[in-house]
Amino acid sequence: MAGALSHWGWGFADRFPDLEARREMGAHVQALLGFAPGEPREPRPVESLSLPAPRVTPPPALAAGCDASPYARASHSYGKGYPDLLRGLRGEFRAPPDFVALPREEAEVVALLDWAAGQGVAVVPFGGGTSVVAGVETDVGAPFRGVVSLDLRRLCRVLEVDAISRAARIQAGATGPAIEAQLAPHGLSLRHYPQSFELSTLGGWIATRSGGHFATLHTRIDDFTQSVRMVTPAGILQTGRFPSSGAGPSPEHLVLGSEGTLGVVTEAWMRVQARPRFRSSAAVHFAELARGVQAVREIAQSGLYPANCRLLDAREAALHAVTADGSHVLLLGFESADHPNEEGMRRAVEIAAAHGGVCPAGPVHKSEGERTGEEGTAAAWRQAFFDAPYLWNVLVSLGLIVDTFETACTWDRFDALHEGVIARVRAAMKRACGGGRISCRLTHVYPDGAAPYYTFLAPGRPGAELEQWAEIKRAACDVLVSLGATITHHHAVGRLHRPWYERERSPLLAAALRAAKGALDPEGILNPGVLL
Amino acid sequence: MAGALSHWGWGFADRFPDLEARREMGAHVQALLGFAPGEPREPRPVESLSLPAPRVTPPPALAAGCDASPYARASHSYGKGYPDLLRGLRGEFRAPPDFVALPREEAEVVALLDWAAGQGVAVVPFGGGTSVVAGVETDVGAPFRGVVSLDLRRLCRVLEVDAISRAARIQAGATGPAIEAQLAPHGLSLRHYPQSFELSTLGGWIATRSGGHFATLHTRIDDFTQSVRMVTPAGILQTGRFPSSGAGPSPEHLVLGSEGTLGVVTEAWMRVQARPRFRSSAAVHFAELARGVQAVREIAQSGLYPANCRLLDAREAALHAVTADGSHVLLLGFESADHPNEEGMRRAVEIAAAHGGVCPAGPVHKSEGERTGEEGTAAAWRQAFFDAPYLWNVLVSLGLIVDTFETACTWDRFDALHEGVIARVRAAMKRACGGGRISCRLTHVYPDGAAPYYTFLAPGRPGAELEQWAEIKRAACDVLVSLGATITHHHAVGRLHRPWYERERSPLLAAALRAAKGALDPEGILNPGVLL
Repeated sequence: MAGALSHWGWGFADRFPDLEARREMGAHVQALLGFAPGEPREPRPVESLSLPAPRVTPPPALAAGCDASPYARASHSYGKGYPDLLRGLRGEFRAPPDFVALPREEAEVVALLDWAAGQGVAVVPFGGGTSVVAGVETDVGAPFRGVVSLDLRRLCRVLEVDAISRAARIQAGATGPAIEAQLAPHGLSLRHYPQSFELSTLGGWIATRSGGHFATLHTRIDDFTQSVRMVTPAGILQTGRFPSSGAGPSPEHLVLGSEGTLGVVTEAWMRVQARPRFRSSAAVHFAELARGVQAVREIAQSGLYPANCRLLDAREAALHAVTADGSHVLLLGFESADHPNEEGMRRAVEIAAAHGGVCPAGPVHKSEGERTGEEGTAAAWRQAFFDAPYLWNVLVSLGLIVDTFETACTWDRFDALHEGVIARVRAAMKRACGGGRISCRLTHVYPDGAAPYYTFLAPGRPGAELEQWAEIKRAACDVLVSLGATITHHHAVGRLHRPWYERERSPLLAAALRAAKGALDPEGILNPGVLL
Repeated sequence: MAGALSHWGWGFADRFPDLEARREMGAHVQALLGFAPGEPREPRPVESLSLPAPRVTPPPALAAGCDASPYARASHSYGKGYPDLLRGLRGEFRAPPDFVALPREEAEVVALLDWAAGQGVAVVPFGGGTSVVAGVETDVGAPFRGVVSLDLRRLCRVLEVDAISRAARIQAGATGPAIEAQLAPHGLSLRHYPQSFELSTLGGWIATRSGGHFATLHTRIDDFTQSVRMVTPAGILQTGRFPSSGAGPSPEHLVLGSEGTLGVVTEAWMRVQARPRFRSSAAVHFAELARGVQAVREIAQSGLYPANCRLLDAREAALHAVTADGSHVLLLGFESADHPNEEGMRRAVEIAAAHGGVCPAGPVHKSEGERTGEEGTAAAWRQAFFDAPYLWNVLVSLGLIVDTFETACTWDRFDALHEGVIARVRAAMKRACGGGRISCRLTHVYPDGAAPYYTFLAPGRPGAELEQWAEIKRAACDVLVSLGATITHHHAVGRLHRPWYERERSPLLAAALRAAKGALDPEGILNPGVLL
């Protein structure tokens, strides 16, 4: 893993291209999008930032594990949404954490929460810092004497492996690569690959109910979570380690999705898997998106459960370099550690064909020995998928407004939703920016509905980008909730989605959650402003 | 559907065999179990019961939908566990509900809760009344002025079908057969078949996180629950209708498993399925149970996801008339509405064979046209499965102590758990009854563990049966929790399992649940004594 993380943008700092390379990318962008990016801007270096002075200092017992340097404070001010990148680039860090705590063991998490509750200091849990919904932002407002960003990165070990039950006890601060590297010697894998995989952590995945690469069936970290351990200001909540239990409401589901408002996840027993030995993949092209959607619905209701079942519209396919011929593309994949999946793939392609899908290259089947070099389309997609956030750094520096949003709705509402989103977001981009481009892919599909994921790009006006972006984002959120879709399938609520979450959520659910928070975090120091 | 439900035993009253038939069954039991049952006892007729006078009467506006007859009150006093059947048979109804409310619409549920909260009257939600954990028992103790059993049976309709999304809006009081009958014209099925299927209701399944017939993958009603609606004393909680959402903690999981303590489920949008067109089944015999367990573990971890994967030990196989040759039997089944499963079955049988399993009859594959008459072993199992509770009525009347308990644990703990359970329960039966018989089957299996289900039978001493039973039950619960298994996989907590649930549950989880209950049921009138 390369050097330091960027203090303002996505990922590792040394992956931000130099001026010349960004200029060149600007030319490509113009060819692709049809509007001219601006002259690349340079991020303000950390050394030149003038951050407000810390209001509180770490307690002596914890001081060695804390960091109040400008780099630490700046890089823990925001997540990695568009406004975060933009403000970071501009060097606007108005409410950084007073310090960053990097506990080396769970006891230090306990001690920090004790201290913070006693001092009236807010604590914002920080995993990989990849939130795109202001879930780790430290601008928590008035009643607190200070705010600490609690970074779990030092708790990054796989502590135990139970190969019989296929489970592993993993510390919450472990990133995707750290988890996979520690499981690999056991022939095991967690197989959870969100787009943030390189940086995000197990604790963050659990706190936000992260969505992974499985497009059907086990789409969410929830499905792999056997048992969790969470430090709260009121003590440690540990759930039992069972494959399944019917004893009362699921305790794990109080923690999953709690977004750091109830406690700090420190470790979890996760369900892991044998590494796949058999893979099949296919790219099916559709002339009409609507027919691709029908095919995906039928596949989702077939019980075939492909690991990959991602439908990219033509713009998304072009953006991710999957194809540029104007067709919409369904990427299908099956994977198994136990048996080949050729029959399942054959049936899935047959369903797609019945809806007009064409599979020019035919499915590709690989078994263990042949694993080197996966076939072209899927591999191109995967690389582009993980690299996309790095590209956003560049686009933001070129003055573009770039963001994504995602949702889920039942199939009966899908066509109206998709049409409404495209129309309303286009109109908002027209109003705010004079135009723009929106593309869509289905990231996860279910028997009863789908999770569409939208990417929009529009030209920003220097100095006005935040307002322009907010107008588009507001239009997007409004249309989702008004057409019966959820405000988020897997990006979480954070501070950004809260107004729409409140429209979607029953007031009684809010009352129950607030009461539960009162029991676990009586001083209300944990991630204030998120969810509640 | 035959006449009235029994006021004391399982199911419909007219399915209780006459004296002669029960004597004959007693002889069979002796041959099977090796100990002599007593002379059949007759249940006390309703007319001869002397119930305590009702302490409260229904409010006038609801009176037409309420029933304070001795039959209604007696038949709503208990669930259907062993102590319930025994006390019912004896005619012991010391704390029946003061009346039974049978609302015809949701507004009457709201009105009843309003009235009860104002009057300090406890409300016990009642679905099919099939709880085996004292979950619907009305003996709620001191601080209440009275207690009402709230029977949802009149809310029994499928209100809406969304064939596109494969979902249906169903009222909570609908029983299994009522749901299937209303979905059948649409070619759809909920496919949730707990042993109580004939009597239990959607609302009860949701409140208790019921386990169905799918042995792998979608084992629990949770998986089919898209959205729920629950009337609480504080108002109506309605969750959004999404295929999946990442917006905060799952709202459905606050309701699932709440066992009537937070509110009364009145309806839910459920995920339904096309009726299966392809079925494969096989019965695999094992000389050693432990090798069968290994085979099941490997199948559970294979990603094949058979619909049926039930391992019966030799005693269980004999009890359910599946086989009597002393072998342990794994019942395997695949079902699909979309594609044949022969390849999956072939692989599952191959895995079983590698662990010494023999499949004498070979797998049987059927497609739609051939659906009449399923193959022998699985069909025999299924009928015996649904009939078993009727047999318990008879066994109890013959003076036998008969009960079941179930759990789940990770695979690494399974062998020690199973050994411990058998030894400890045998020892308890020896102490309490001079002997007895315990058998086991695995009802549900997961990649990370299994759910074993135990049935025990022992001779009762007239008058001492409750104490004898309690000693055995206590031993069973103690051994489960002490060996790291959950107190219940799908029978729920109720009042019966509460002491062990409290050992298994984190105190902080209890605090959070108690706080949530305070927000939704501030007077604490709902199902007091259950869970909390």
